[in-house]
Amino acid sequence: MASIFTKIINREIPGHIVAEDDNFIAFLDIMPLVKGHVLVVPKKEVDYIFDLEDDHLSGLHIFAKRVAKAIDKTISCTRVGVAVIGLEVPHVHVHLVPMNSMGDINFSRPKLKLSEEELKSIAEKISNAVEL
Amino acid sequence: MASIFTKIINREIPGHIVAEDDNFIAFLDIMPLVKGHVLVVPKKEVDYIFDLEDDHLSGLHIFAKRVAKAIDKTISCTRVGVAVIGLEVPHVHVHLVPMNSMGDINFSRPKLKLSEEELKSIAEKISNAVEL
Repeated sequence: MASIFTKIINREIPGHIVAEDDNFIAFLDIMPLVKGHVLVVPKKEVDYIFDLEDDHLSGLHIFAKRVAKAIDKTISCTRVGVAVIGLEVPHVHVHLVPMNSMGDINFSRPKLKLSEEELKSIAEKISNAVEL
Repeated sequence: MASIFTKIINREIPGHIVAEDDNFIAFLDIMPLVKGHVLVVPKKEVDYIFDLEDDHLSGLHIFAKRVAKAIDKTISCTRVGVAVIGLEVPHVHVHLVPMNSMGDINFSRPKLKLSEEELKSIAEKISNAVEL
């Protein structure tokens, strides 16, 4: 069965997409730790990041860097943190989390609830700043 | 001034090294979240991961994959998680954390205190399984 991320990739369910190329896509996490929390996902559905072939793994992180630079430009933060956990959705996803303190990247903390309008506005700001 | 990681690279202070090549090094975090928590570090001292050139960033993650596979083989875990925070030591370091649950990669939790003998034994096991 297609993962929830594949459904976003295929436009079967809506997502706040901020960047996309032939192999990778980035969209807002709808249960963000902080404003501007983005997921970077390979379009090919692979469960475990360390099962990606070397060139695909490289491509994923270079794509993520482009998105992180756009987050740095548009979201108030000290820097963008990176996390790959992968115990929930079985489809590789790199969390990009704009951080101001260590606590911002604690996945045990309660998630933000943002309105559709807020998510749309954040996605547009980041998307406009992405240079692929 | 050289970072604490550069001092480990230069053997000015001891480290439990598990893998090394011309550009990257991996050693145990001496304040681990769990047993087998490894740091992967580029030898060139750069503060922010997204300031690495694309090929250096790729190389770092491919090297980290080799080390993660060795952790998967030798440390009891569901999978190896990845985190890059970078608010403390100003020298890029990728955390590789063997995880059994989400809570294993929470940087707010108390760190383990392991003896030198335990650290040495863990480092040897992982090191013996690394295929660069």
